[in-house]
Amino acid sequence: MEQRYAELKARLAQIFDLRRTQELLFWDQTVMMPPAGAAVRSAQLSTLDQIAHGLFVSDETGGLLEELRPYEESLPYESDEASLIRVTRRDWEKARRVPADLAAEMVRAVSEGQEIWAKAREEANYELFRPHLQHALELKLRYVDCFEDYDDPYDVLLDDFERGMKTAEVRAVLDDLKAELVPLIAEVGSSEPDEPFMSGPFPVGAQHDLSLHLIERLGYDPRCFRLDLTAHPFAAHSGTQDIRLTTRYVENDLSSLFTAMHECGHGLYEHGVSQALERTPLATGVSYALHESQSRLWENIVGRSRPFWNHFYPRLQKTFPDVLGNVDQERWYRAINRVKPSYIRVDADEATYNLHVILRFELEQEMLSGRLALTDLREAWNARFEEYLGLPVPNDSLGVLQDVHWAGAGFGYFSTYTLGNIMSVQIWEKALSELPDLPEQFEAGEFGQLHEWLRTRLYALGRKFTPKETLERVVGGPIDAAPYVRYLKDKLGALTTA
Amino acid sequence: MEQRYAELKARLAQIFDLRRTQELLFWDQTVMMPPAGAAVRSAQLSTLDQIAHGLFVSDETGGLLEELRPYEESLPYESDEASLIRVTRRDWEKARRVPADLAAEMVRAVSEGQEIWAKAREEANYELFRPHLQHALELKLRYVDCFEDYDDPYDVLLDDFERGMKTAEVRAVLDDLKAELVPLIAEVGSSEPDEPFMSGPFPVGAQHDLSLHLIERLGYDPRCFRLDLTAHPFAAHSGTQDIRLTTRYVENDLSSLFTAMHECGHGLYEHGVSQALERTPLATGVSYALHESQSRLWENIVGRSRPFWNHFYPRLQKTFPDVLGNVDQERWYRAINRVKPSYIRVDADEATYNLHVILRFELEQEMLSGRLALTDLREAWNARFEEYLGLPVPNDSLGVLQDVHWAGAGFGYFSTYTLGNIMSVQIWEKALSELPDLPEQFEAGEFGQLHEWLRTRLYALGRKFTPKETLERVVGGPIDAAPYVRYLKDKLGALTTA
Repeated sequence: MEQRYAELKARLAQIFDLRRTQELLFWDQTVMMPPAGAAVRSAQLSTLDQIAHGLFVSDETGGLLEELRPYEESLPYESDEASLIRVTRRDWEKARRVPADLAAEMVRAVSEGQEIWAKAREEANYELFRPHLQHALELKLRYVDCFEDYDDPYDVLLDDFERGMKTAEVRAVLDDLKAELVPLIAEVGSSEPDEPFMSGPFPVGAQHDLSLHLIERLGYDPRCFRLDLTAHPFAAHSGTQDIRLTTRYVENDLSSLFTAMHECGHGLYEHGVSQALERTPLATGVSYALHESQSRLWENIVGRSRPFWNHFYPRLQKTFPDVLGNVDQERWYRAINRVKPSYIRVDADEATYNLHVILRFELEQEMLSGRLALTDLREAWNARFEEYLGLPVPNDSLGVLQDVHWAGAGFGYFSTYTLGNIMSVQIWEKALSELPDLPEQFEAGEFGQLHEWLRTRLYALGRKFTPKETLERVVGGPIDAAPYVRYLKDKLGALTTA
Repeated sequence: MEQRYAELKARLAQIFDLRRTQELLFWDQTVMMPPAGAAVRSAQLSTLDQIAHGLFVSDETGGLLEELRPYEESLPYESDEASLIRVTRRDWEKARRVPADLAAEMVRAVSEGQEIWAKAREEANYELFRPHLQHALELKLRYVDCFEDYDDPYDVLLDDFERGMKTAEVRAVLDDLKAELVPLIAEVGSSEPDEPFMSGPFPVGAQHDLSLHLIERLGYDPRCFRLDLTAHPFAAHSGTQDIRLTTRYVENDLSSLFTAMHECGHGLYEHGVSQALERTPLATGVSYALHESQSRLWENIVGRSRPFWNHFYPRLQKTFPDVLGNVDQERWYRAINRVKPSYIRVDADEATYNLHVILRFELEQEMLSGRLALTDLREAWNARFEEYLGLPVPNDSLGVLQDVHWAGAGFGYFSTYTLGNIMSVQIWEKALSELPDLPEQFEAGEFGQLHEWLRTRLYALGRKFTPKETLERVVGGPIDAAPYVRYLKDKLGALTTA
């Protein structure tokens, strides 16, 4: 049995090497590659994908998993070995259900969709995009049809990002949140222009040095991390000890500091996965929502907190004396935490962001169930956007066409952003209950205890358990919007009353 | 038949994608990777190698090649299709002869050897290295035994770098060269200290800008190339349109300019391979010697010439006014072309370099044939080094232990450096005979016609023909040391008599 297990592990290590190599090639393409390399790179990525997929869905993999059932049952559920067999079997069964031609058609639709979407967005013309969206939706429904055993078609798509979570659960949580959030934002939301000091100028070299300084304090280790520049920041990794973060700088904006902390949060999660899981499919974060909980925890709960800036604000002023020399810390704190409804999701503040997500989550379910025809999508978007955020949508580019996700048939994905926000506060409250002096540590510029707590409780687990089991292990209960609502009310209430 | 050919091509494209990905991973490891990523990277490289090797040596590949014989014979010898089948068959037959366990043992020996060699070199202690060298040599002899049909064991090793070339041919060419070079160097070689301006200081930022300026004039195109920093400069590529050069800068030395032109020469060759050959095993330079002929042509024949500096010297002076402001161009020209025997091959000048190579070529043959026991290697090295270069060897680090190549069982490789020098002048003379105003173009800072001539005559061919056929197509005859000897005599003679 041990020999069979070693065979499975060796096979998965090869597949995982290919998968991580794909990620590194993608990083290289985005960050380093001379532009003319794109055509060959795309072929290389597709070759790696085909080989990895072929090795994984093979009968040999399935045979090994079948033979290893008694071995798995003889071991504790939480052992690395039983977890590897259990999680791999679930992955294998899912992968086997999708016919190769459908998978290939979806890949093609994604790459075609990007271009059509970009053109339609440029022209602010939803009708131009609608036929492609229809095609993407039909492919997604064919994908849903590959599976049984779901209550809602959205369940199947959600499962790709948040294994085992049900649409009904998400709906309950997001409905709770929406009921609290819409009136709260109507109450505390500002319509004033931004503080003038928020538009700099902030020289980009100084932004870079300060970004590095901040994330090095959070846990970024130059022996294991890089920070580079891209148009769209992201975090990637080629192994737990090789983490690649990207960011961007513009002179009239300091959001780069929060971008760096956000991506660093993703990176710390991957870096913290137990090295015993390296080169297995368990060596990565467990789900999109739990990943986002970590980027948000470091960016917002830590990085937009008073204790954090009690420590770092003097340095920030010294870095940008012309702009911030005469701005007191409280004004800075309020400016970076200001709530202000706006059109574009990716520019939204911590609170209104969730309403952008809830809007998409609702529309996706209605499209998938057939309750909303694509001919009516634009009107539905505009009506609901105004209802939730209080703003009339002036055109499709600021409305239904703003995100690339649907062009890539990325249904089921948006909700994980807000689930991540919700989990981030649950995890934070748990950490704080065990380490009550964290705020004092932040004031002193110390983040090591929080990092260590998160590493041992969450990061080290990798993908051994389901997202639900993982959250349960960390916070002792299921997902719950109440702590997040409380956190937002406390933070935003204090800002308006003070 | 066309369908069988398409199958072969698709299979080779996958293998070639994996091979180029290995090269990109190696580049990333050397240039970008955080150091802690090394362990997983090494596993990834080994996985890609195993999969690519497995796909290539398979019976399926051999079966396709066999089926395609009549198709190959029906096509012109120089067609892309016939060439792909012919060259691949030769590669396949070679690869099939080496048992997997020997290949694996050689890989292990290489990685173990590095460490033992580094320690022995540090301690200047050949005896420490000797047992490993014995092991490496025995493995190489076992490798030789996998083949038949050779006149000299060195033939088999040479064939890995210079397909089809025979030891006897190389020996004849290098003996000719040695007979001319030893007395020439004794006559023109200097023992004076270097000109003081050669040690700067040259600020590294300015070195980088100037390096880029020079190679952009030679043909480096930022849409298709990068230039980065490493301890040991090299050129790599992930496709013909994605060329990665590396260089290094030290403040007390301007050799970086020549390093950049050298690596750019390698890059221009890969970049110039016909795009019709992309993603096939033909999409790369044909041999080590022809590759080196291009790095040397751009570095030495172009980059150390009078017309070149007639154009660029004023700019060089302006870049480093404190150091070169009062140095006239002729002094600079003489300083960068000075012949001076020295111990370390990689620091040697254009002329003495060849004697370092010839020494190693002779010793390798004697070791492989058993005529030289490893217990006598150090003494043989020291005696012959003094005979050729006129310098007594003070210790093993400056002598027999200076190169890493033998630690990696890299026998058969050194000679290609000098073969490249020899070919570089043959190719240059041919170009000059067809484009007699090249020197005037260089004076005007124009290198496009030479680049275009080389691209269409040599680079575009990739690996379609054997190295010998390739050289024959470019210069109209076989390798011949006479033009190179004439070139060195003219250039060096003019320096001593003027």
